[in-house]
Amino acid sequence: MEVAIYSNSRQLFNRLFCNILHLHRSYYHHGRSKRILLSRLFQPMNLREDRTIGVGRSSDITCKSQRLMLQAGLIQPANTGCFHYLPYTVRAMEKLVRVIDKEMQSIGGQKVNMPSLTSASLWKTSERWDLLGKELFRLKDRHDMEYCLSPTHEEAVTELIAMQGNLSYRQLPLMLYQVTRKFRDEPKPRFGLLRGREFYMKDMYTFDVSEGAAMETYNLVSQAYSCIFGQLGLQFVKVQADTGSIGGKMSHEFQLPADIGEDRLLMCSDCHFAANVEAMTDTETNCPQCHGKLKESKGIEVGHTFYLGTKYSYILGASYSNTENKPVVTEMGCFGLGVTRILAAAIEVLSTEDEIRWPSLLAPYQVCIIPPKKGSKEELSLGLSETLYDTLIDAVPQLHGEVLLDDRSHLTIGKRLKDASRLGYPYVVIAGKRVLENPPVFEVRCQNNGKTVFLTQEGVLDLLRNVKIV
Amino acid sequence: MEVAIYSNSRQLFNRLFCNILHLHRSYYHHGRSKRILLSRLFQPMNLREDRTIGVGRSSDITCKSQRLMLQAGLIQPANTGCFHYLPYTVRAMEKLVRVIDKEMQSIGGQKVNMPSLTSASLWKTSERWDLLGKELFRLKDRHDMEYCLSPTHEEAVTELIAMQGNLSYRQLPLMLYQVTRKFRDEPKPRFGLLRGREFYMKDMYTFDVSEGAAMETYNLVSQAYSCIFGQLGLQFVKVQADTGSIGGKMSHEFQLPADIGEDRLLMCSDCHFAANVEAMTDTETNCPQCHGKLKESKGIEVGHTFYLGTKYSYILGASYSNTENKPVVTEMGCFGLGVTRILAAAIEVLSTEDEIRWPSLLAPYQVCIIPPKKGSKEELSLGLSETLYDTLIDAVPQLHGEVLLDDRSHLTIGKRLKDASRLGYPYVVIAGKRVLENPPVFEVRCQNNGKTVFLTQEGVLDLLRNVKIV
Repeated sequence: MEVAIYSNSRQLFNRLFCNILHLHRSYYHHGRSKRILLSRLFQPMNLREDRTIGVGRSSDITCKSQRLMLQAGLIQPANTGCFHYLPYTVRAMEKLVRVIDKEMQSIGGQKVNMPSLTSASLWKTSERWDLLGKELFRLKDRHDMEYCLSPTHEEAVTELIAMQGNLSYRQLPLMLYQVTRKFRDEPKPRFGLLRGREFYMKDMYTFDVSEGAAMETYNLVSQAYSCIFGQLGLQFVKVQADTGSIGGKMSHEFQLPADIGEDRLLMCSDCHFAANVEAMTDTETNCPQCHGKLKESKGIEVGHTFYLGTKYSYILGASYSNTENKPVVTEMGCFGLGVTRILAAAIEVLSTEDEIRWPSLLAPYQVCIIPPKKGSKEELSLGLSETLYDTLIDAVPQLHGEVLLDDRSHLTIGKRLKDASRLGYPYVVIAGKRVLENPPVFEVRCQNNGKTVFLTQEGVLDLLRNVKIV
Repeated sequence: MEVAIYSNSRQLFNRLFCNILHLHRSYYHHGRSKRILLSRLFQPMNLREDRTIGVGRSSDITCKSQRLMLQAGLIQPANTGCFHYLPYTVRAMEKLVRVIDKEMQSIGGQKVNMPSLTSASLWKTSERWDLLGKELFRLKDRHDMEYCLSPTHEEAVTELIAMQGNLSYRQLPLMLYQVTRKFRDEPKPRFGLLRGREFYMKDMYTFDVSEGAAMETYNLVSQAYSCIFGQLGLQFVKVQADTGSIGGKMSHEFQLPADIGEDRLLMCSDCHFAANVEAMTDTETNCPQCHGKLKESKGIEVGHTFYLGTKYSYILGASYSNTENKPVVTEMGCFGLGVTRILAAAIEVLSTEDEIRWPSLLAPYQVCIIPPKKGSKEELSLGLSETLYDTLIDAVPQLHGEVLLDDRSHLTIGKRLKDASRLGYPYVVIAGKRVLENPPVFEVRCQNNGKTVFLTQEGVLDLLRNVKIV
């Protein structure tokens, strides 16, 4: 039994120890620590039907993205409406969070993290304890105190602000956001990550000095949302929406048009009017603005913005000191993005029936290299794929961690290419017949535009130098 | 009312729109988007005692790290044992997670994310539903199905593996880990983030072909843990530990020695023996290995490793196919790091009574620049601090997002320096009297080693070029 007490004087030793350990690892586990080998990735594609009790059976599959994500080993069912996110999904989600962080912080958002447990008394103050009914997961602690598992944090963040002793008008607009797991006891969880009971959401709460300032903030955040969907290459429709149980004075949804979408949207073909039917006062067939004909389509809600006014800040006493040092109730906004829902919705709208397509920025790995099959003529050039891999990482450092080597060389190139197409790596580099040429030529499938190009190693490097990594 | 439908052909427009928006922002909000201004950061230092109902009153403060984190606006109480993590804490935590990710992935760890809700039936299978008693938060869904809020995921991950139809010995060792929020209904939540009811934990679960292979994996993960604490400059003691409610055959804890620690450790002054008293069979005063005298000290548990054997894999049927294609039950290990606890424990052991000190890698911001007071002689050189800021970011790109400008220039340098010392930025750069010299000279306080140096702008750049950023 060993004991290691690291005193300050032993920190140098300790660092040396870590360095030696890292050297040791890269010597003995070269492939594992340096090259990412597909055969080592946990991506289960073959679940035991006899073990999937009540969840995840083929009969439970309700849409394309759910089916593709299950088949490709991206998610695995846990309980009704709850999924394990497997490694590819976690990578894609972390990339999406980086995109969101960048945009939220560029407009002045500051990241916080609020507890999931919120006390019943706080939700009773806003009267949402009763309003949300069965959608709220409720529980008691060992002292019989009641809590909910927060689906959203208007009350919590408003109380956080109300507790400040000296919030000055100079500190506003204040824009706090978090990316955390949320809970909702859905009556019918379905569509995989599109409508689950546990999901990740980015929620931002803003505090302003006046209605005018709050509207400016509202527009700023809305523009940032447009930028996020734009960067992801996702077509969206921004529609007038109902404020629902959140409340407030005004609300818009960001919708991705899709047949399986659960929201019904009405869009005017003549002017810019668009709305969720829930936001329409009665069933209108003509545009309320230009009286043009309204067309209906379906959409998946991926973002929602609310101008709340003083609904929460008034009840909970969240105020700031104005220029005359008088307390004034703040004007609030709240802004949600469904993080895990965006992932699934993107797969839903971009994929074919058999092949996943990702927003390029979010692909779990950007490049998959397929070396020749064992025993083939081209096998002699096996080293070429490994050299390409190592050279690529050296020459294009941002691709570190983004390149896979499909080392399942007992399989044909065709079989592995099929898997790669199904997974949707943006670039698949194949060491096919033409690697025997001098200089060797690789086949590169650019899956997001469907093009195939034949390039030397230098050409591959030039092409991939331009890949944008988040 | 506007509607924006982005078709593929409009993606170019959309990107242009985002670029213009970013330009617009950096033009109008120069300070906000380019320089990080201290006055804009949400870091509440003055809570209303009348509003802190039942939590967070000064009488609830039970240790130094909790007091310092509350006073400096790093955390704010929400419910008993639940805290809002404010922006500085979120930044430090994200850095810690990056350190952990790097080490876990360098030994082959793959990141997953499992639901918080775990079904009662699964926990009943392992008999931990009853064993954990009141520590487990329990709830029912709308269909009266019972769940717990997982404090740990042995059952869930073992079921995940048991569901695989074709796990081969070639895929082992398999090392899955996650960094997620965990729940425990502590009888006495206290010490701020050290013993809360909601907390972040990194938990890794490993699957091996044999006891021997599992021991190799156990040592590999233990070494990675030593590396993590080494990088953070934290002295630790690794002790034999009780396996508690997790169970298994062997267990070690990583402890940070501290007076407020809740664990009692026995260490031999003659040999390498060290153990948690809970792991000792009876109250021994002499070392069971060399009969040397045992010394007692207290520690904060920040990591825990378990060799589980087949405790969970046998019950839940998690097996792999061996070389003869026969199913064999996997040997498991599990490995925990208290993410939020490490943050608080580091502050507990590194800080003075009044000033926070961070592990250098985890400091929320690395550099704080303090320009002259408004109205002072040195005010003429105000531009020098801003030039230093901009030049620094240009010359040392990894410092992007790591440098603060303390623009509260109505305060004296002394007052702002006091705040900076309290917050513990590793480097505080002061535009004091000597900025009037030619060339101007800045005072640099290196807070982690207590040294003060006087440097020209070029000298400051050279010093800060070496700052390690994670």
